[in-house]
Amino acid sequence: MRPIGERRIAVLAEGGFDLLEAKTAVGVIRYGRDPVVAVADSRYTGRTAADIVGVGDDVPIVESVAAALAYKPNTLLLGTAPRGGVLPAAWRRQVVHAMREGLDIINGLHHFLEEDEELAGVARSCGVDLWDVRRVPDEHRVADTRAHQLDATIVLTVGSDCNVGKMSASLELDAAARRAGHRSAFVATGQTGIIIAGWGMAIDRVISDFAAGASEDLVMQGAEQGDIVFVEGQGSLVHPGYSGVTLSLIHGSAPDGMILCHQVTRTTIRRYTLPVPPLRDLVTLHEHATAHVKPSRVIGIALNTFGLDEAAAQQAIAAAADETGLPATDPVRYDVQPLLAAVEALHNRRKQQREKAAAG
Amino acid sequence: MRPIGERRIAVLAEGGFDLLEAKTAVGVIRYGRDPVVAVADSRYTGRTAADIVGVGDDVPIVESVAAALAYKPNTLLLGTAPRGGVLPAAWRRQVVHAMREGLDIINGLHHFLEEDEELAGVARSCGVDLWDVRRVPDEHRVADTRAHQLDATIVLTVGSDCNVGKMSASLELDAAARRAGHRSAFVATGQTGIIIAGWGMAIDRVISDFAAGASEDLVMQGAEQGDIVFVEGQGSLVHPGYSGVTLSLIHGSAPDGMILCHQVTRTTIRRYTLPVPPLRDLVTLHEHATAHVKPSRVIGIALNTFGLDEAAAQQAIAAAADETGLPATDPVRYDVQPLLAAVEALHNRRKQQREKAAAG
Repeated sequence: MRPIGERRIAVLAEGGFDLLEAKTAVGVIRYGRDPVVAVADSRYTGRTAADIVGVGDDVPIVESVAAALAYKPNTLLLGTAPRGGVLPAAWRRQVVHAMREGLDIINGLHHFLEEDEELAGVARSCGVDLWDVRRVPDEHRVADTRAHQLDATIVLTVGSDCNVGKMSASLELDAAARRAGHRSAFVATGQTGIIIAGWGMAIDRVISDFAAGASEDLVMQGAEQGDIVFVEGQGSLVHPGYSGVTLSLIHGSAPDGMILCHQVTRTTIRRYTLPVPPLRDLVTLHEHATAHVKPSRVIGIALNTFGLDEAAAQQAIAAAADETGLPATDPVRYDVQPLLAAVEALHNRRKQQREKAAAG
Repeated sequence: MRPIGERRIAVLAEGGFDLLEAKTAVGVIRYGRDPVVAVADSRYTGRTAADIVGVGDDVPIVESVAAALAYKPNTLLLGTAPRGGVLPAAWRRQVVHAMREGLDIINGLHHFLEEDEELAGVARSCGVDLWDVRRVPDEHRVADTRAHQLDATIVLTVGSDCNVGKMSASLELDAAARRAGHRSAFVATGQTGIIIAGWGMAIDRVISDFAAGASEDLVMQGAEQGDIVFVEGQGSLVHPGYSGVTLSLIHGSAPDGMILCHQVTRTTIRRYTLPVPPLRDLVTLHEHATAHVKPSRVIGIALNTFGLDEAAAQQAIAAAADETGLPATDPVRYDVQPLLAAVEALHNRRKQQREKAAAG
C-alpha cells in the first residue's frame, strides 16, 4: 500500500455518491492528507464533488473507474458504505480494472476483499495491495480499565445518532489543538477515520465481549502520541442497533470529557422512527452511563447545522447552549474554538489536580 | 450430537471445579434435563459435586475422564470458562481419550474445537460430534426494532455484575411460570443457558455492530414459543468490559420489564476494583438506558444470597425491597413467586392495554 502522502485517490461510488451513503468519500475529501483526483458515479458525470456533497470543488465526477484513470490515481477507494456493507456486484468489474492498471485498493466495506477469492487473486497477480480497513485483529482481550489513570486528557465525541459529525468534530478539535500548540492526537474508531489517520480500529467489527478492550488499546496508543487525545465516537446510546458499540467505546476509552454531537435537522434516528431525545436528556444520559465506571461530563455541544441557513444555524447554536448551559458551535461551519476552550479548561484542571496531588 | 433427553454427561473441569470458574458445569447440574454422571477434577477425587459447589449430591468427582467412563457417559462437557477461554493444554489428552471412547463433546469455551486441527481430526476419525456452543453464525444484521411490538411479554434479567444469577433467575421464573399454567419460554444468550435449553446464541461472541440484531432474532424466536418470554441477561451496564454486550441485549430484546439481579456479598465488580452501585441507582440507570429506545421498568429484584446465613439473607431481601420499593427474593434459595407475581401483573396490564386499544 502506498503510504499516506504518496496516494492519489480515485473514489468508486457508483450510484451512491451522496451525503447519505458516501460518508467515507466525503470524509476523505474533506480531511484526508492525499488528494482525491476523481469520483466515479455515472449519475453525476461532468459535475464536481462539491456540486453534490458540498466539498471537493476541484474533484471531477466521472463515468467510471476507466474514465478516472485520466487523472492519474494510484489508489482506488471503495467509498460508499451501504448498510450491511456488501460489495455491489456491478462494482467488481471496475475494481478488477483498477487493479489491472496498478491501483492499490482501500476498502471500507464490511465485505472483505482479502476473503474474496476472485478479487484477492487478481490483486496478487497484479502485485497491488488490498487494504480492508474494517478488518480487526483476530485476538482481543477483555477491558481491564487500563485507560482510567492516564495523564493525557481523553475527549470522546458522543452523539444523538450515527452520522451527525462525531468524526468531524474530533478531527477539527485535533487540528485546532495542534494549531494552538498542544501535543494532540486523533484516535480513529471507524473506517473513514482510519483511512484519514492511517491507523485505528473499526470498533464496530470487534466481537462484542472485546469491544471495550479494543477501545482501551486504541486510547493507550493515542496517549503515547498526545497529551490531549480526541477519540472518534461511534453510534449513539439511543441507537437501537449500535448502542452497544457506543457504550463499549465509552467505557473502554474512559474519557475525561465528552463532546455531544447532534445534527439539528435530525428529529428521528436515521432509518428508524424513534425520536431523537432533547440535548439535555442526552447530556444526563451520557453522564449517567459513565458515572459508575469512570465518571465523565459532557463539556460542549458540536452541532451539525447542515441544511440550515445562516440565521437558523446561529439560532440553533444559541438554543443548544441555552438548553444545556454548555459551549456550543458547528465546528465544521464555524469556529471550533468554543469547544477547544472547554477542552483546554478540562486539561488544565486535570493538570492542576495532579500537581496538587503530587505536592500534597 | 445426541439430543437433550438422551445425554449422559461427564464434565471435565480439571483444576477449575469451583463456584468461581465452573459456572457452566454448575448450571448444567442444577438446570440441565440430562444427568451429569461425573465431574473430573483430580483435586477433589472422592468428593461429590455438592461438597464443592452446593449442587449435585449424587454426582461423584473423579480423577480424570478415564475414571469418569465407569459412570457410562456418552457426552463430555468442557465445563470451566477461564477468562479468555483458552483450552488448557493438559486437557487435550483427556478430550482425545473421551472421543476415542465415543463421547460427543460440548465445548463452552472461546477456543473452538472445530477450528482445532488435531481435535477436529480426531472427532472425525472417531465419528463423534463437536458442539462449539459459543460459535455464532457468520452472517448477521443490524437491529431494526422488530421486537418492539410483540404481544408476548418480554422479561429480561439485568445485573449489578457478571455471574450474579441472571440465568438462574430467568430459568426459575420460566419454570415457575409453566407450573402456573403460562405458555412461557426461556431465551438463552450465553453458553450455559444454550447447553441447558438446546438453542440460543452467545451474544457476547457476536460482532458488536450486530449484537442487538442477534438479540432481536432470539427474542422473535422465543415469542413463537411463549406468551411470556424470559431472556437471560448478560454482563452489566456498569461492567467496564462487558457493558456494551449488556446494552446491545437490552435494546435488541426490548424488554417490557426487567428483573435486576445482584449478589449480596459482591461489593466490587468481580476482577475489578470498581464499587457495585446501590440497587436504587442501578434501577434508575436501567430505566434511563431504555427510556429513549423502548421504555421499560425494573419490576423486581433477584438477590443471590449465597454465603449468607438465614437471618442475613432474609434481612438482605427485606433491605432490597425497602430500598427499591420492588418485590425482592432469592429465586434459587427461596420462592420465586414474588417475582412471578410481578411478571404476571405486567403481563395482565399489557393484555388489558391491547384489549382496550382493540375495543377503542
